[in-house]
Amino acid sequence: MKQDIQSITDIKGVFANGIHAGIKEKKKDLGYLYVPNAVGSAAVFTQNKFAASSVTYTKSAMKTNTIKAIIINSGNANAGTGKEGEKNTKIMAKQTAIALNLKPKEVAVASTGIIGVQLPIAKIEKSIPKLCETPHSQNGKILAETILTTDKFTKETTLSKKIGKKTITISGITKGSGMIAPNMATTLSFLVTNANIPSKNLQAFLTKAVDESYNMISVDTDTSTNDIALIMATGEYKFSLSSQAESQAFQDLLNEVCKLLAIQIVKDGEGASKMIEVQVKGATSKKEARTIAKSIVDSPLVKTAIYGEDPNWGRVLAAAGKVPSKLNPDKVDIRFAGTLVFSNAIPISHDTKKLKSELKSNEIDIEVDLNLGTHVATAWGCDLTEGYIEINTEYS
Amino acid sequence: MKQDIQSITDIKGVFANGIHAGIKEKKKDLGYLYVPNAVGSAAVFTQNKFAASSVTYTKSAMKTNTIKAIIINSGNANAGTGKEGEKNTKIMAKQTAIALNLKPKEVAVASTGIIGVQLPIAKIEKSIPKLCETPHSQNGKILAETILTTDKFTKETTLSKKIGKKTITISGITKGSGMIAPNMATTLSFLVTNANIPSKNLQAFLTKAVDESYNMISVDTDTSTNDIALIMATGEYKFSLSSQAESQAFQDLLNEVCKLLAIQIVKDGEGASKMIEVQVKGATSKKEARTIAKSIVDSPLVKTAIYGEDPNWGRVLAAAGKVPSKLNPDKVDIRFAGTLVFSNAIPISHDTKKLKSELKSNEIDIEVDLNLGTHVATAWGCDLTEGYIEINTEYS
Repeated sequence: MKQDIQSITDIKGVFANGIHAGIKEKKKDLGYLYVPNAVGSAAVFTQNKFAASSVTYTKSAMKTNTIKAIIINSGNANAGTGKEGEKNTKIMAKQTAIALNLKPKEVAVASTGIIGVQLPIAKIEKSIPKLCETPHSQNGKILAETILTTDKFTKETTLSKKIGKKTITISGITKGSGMIAPNMATTLSFLVTNANIPSKNLQAFLTKAVDESYNMISVDTDTSTNDIALIMATGEYKFSLSSQAESQAFQDLLNEVCKLLAIQIVKDGEGASKMIEVQVKGATSKKEARTIAKSIVDSPLVKTAIYGEDPNWGRVLAAAGKVPSKLNPDKVDIRFAGTLVFSNAIPISHDTKKLKSELKSNEIDIEVDLNLGTHVATAWGCDLTEGYIEINTEYS
Repeated sequence: MKQDIQSITDIKGVFANGIHAGIKEKKKDLGYLYVPNAVGSAAVFTQNKFAASSVTYTKSAMKTNTIKAIIINSGNANAGTGKEGEKNTKIMAKQTAIALNLKPKEVAVASTGIIGVQLPIAKIEKSIPKLCETPHSQNGKILAETILTTDKFTKETTLSKKIGKKTITISGITKGSGMIAPNMATTLSFLVTNANIPSKNLQAFLTKAVDESYNMISVDTDTSTNDIALIMATGEYKFSLSSQAESQAFQDLLNEVCKLLAIQIVKDGEGASKMIEVQVKGATSKKEARTIAKSIVDSPLVKTAIYGEDPNWGRVLAAAGKVPSKLNPDKVDIRFAGTLVFSNAIPISHDTKKLKSELKSNEIDIEVDLNLGTHVATAWGCDLTEGYIEINTEYS
């Protein structure tokens, strides 16, 4: 896999742009991603019961149509806004469809920002034709900026790999800083590939990739009303979907792109100073490995210990044990920042000075080997700092 | 219900004391609670897979014996300590049994403090005979102090109510500050009643009471390796266990004592400045009401909003929606600090100034009415502040 292009719009047939429509005070807040000849599309959505109307609209549109454009606003989630919110989502789709000469159900809508406040829809209606005046803009980097809220930096990844005879590329942009800060943030992810893949197969690839990446990161355990991960395929290059090797190669490429994007979210976690990677090995099932990995990466006490560079592995042990599993305390090995600290049911004496110096790193690895089976899972998170408290107490 | 006595040892036939054995640097760290004529005992234990040997020992002892004494140490959890830890727990029980003229399996053991470090068992062995020299001490208040770790204050509650012809009293002490800070804390709860109740019935009463109290509080979502709630009955007064009214009266009294104790833990939550009470009404099942109430009280974003006195009810909505339930966004009413903020799927306009001033209170009420059924649950938590981060980053 190599990283050879710079932006999502470096893929042939992919267009994007962003402008300031007046939802945010000054920054860009309205953008499009446009793949006029998309041959397939797929998406994964939030499970939140208060799903925003952008989520319900896009879900329904995708049932009957291939998505060819996404209209995205930041600064307002248009969630908890009832019938008026639904109407405004439809207006966004319709105006974009008119401007790009598409059917409204070929346009996905994504929103991120404050909950419970109606969109300034007049401003948006006025801005969409202006935004789409140049439908073939190649401003992928501007779109990556437009979708941000509390994020401190833009998040882009592009990877290519030869699959069959062609070089297949997948490029994505994402945003998110709190796993959600419902008044200010959401996780959005927009991906494009130059491969020729119909929607049905694309959906299977995306669901698996999100499960191993976006579903395994945690800033603060909260889940947004607006999360969307959406992929479109330009259809430029074919590989053999019936070849297991080629399909797996595409899956691996997509997994890697999603993982690299998701990790950027964790690194930009609200107030975060360190990234945490937890690997659980030797589990009796994938689910068990995932549950324990997430329990550790979600634990406020593990997070604060890592922030404090405290070799406090007892917190890892307690977090691993607090969720349902077949874990046997007599069999577990725990490695904290590379050091074996617990094995055969007892603490392993180790060089505490060395461990403390390892904890000064910006990336802390935790490994828990259950020594029961063959299943593995990895989760990513960040530490919990005063910065998180500061960011999240001062919104209104 | 009335609060007429001051300490657990004001109940006839209940004895307690505490001393400094040298586990902590200076503070009291070893104590006993002794009910020589106990007619019944019951307990609820942590579900953590890394349960400490005090938990496994006490669980097994209670299967065949009525517990008549508890030996408790603070400053060291004796968890993650393998066979040596198990041996040390047995030594604590045995030494106490000798000193109080009991069978070892009539003695429960409870430990709280740092994980993964062996107990200074020689010091403890030397101190137990000294501690038990005066087996009929009535120093309930000293015991309440002895069991503390990061707690800022002792936690005691006593309530009495006439049940049948007699005044039944239940008195308890508890400790806990982080829901767990595995290196420094745990939730322990020791209760005594003057009622004559055999172990089997006592267990049913306690399980229910803990489910409505200790199981519904959250400081930081972490679960200890050492949690124990244990009750002993002195047998002084009888009420009719076969009368539903009298049994329910005792259940109500025990529920209230456990609730008042649990709320003291939340109020002493690490770094906490405000208590949060979340009531979920109109649920289709008790489980659904509990799940949503806990999701809200556990949400870092709700906690930080309340710390910041930010009328940020969108976070309550997002936390309510993120867990599995039959919640219908069109039917939910949300009240934040007494103000209706969301109903019929839309934000309800309200006096933001008034809401902001309500948020200055030390106790914040959140009410979510699903308007679907008749089930109700209440959960208690605290806000998330820089204090929590400070306390939990500086241990080693």
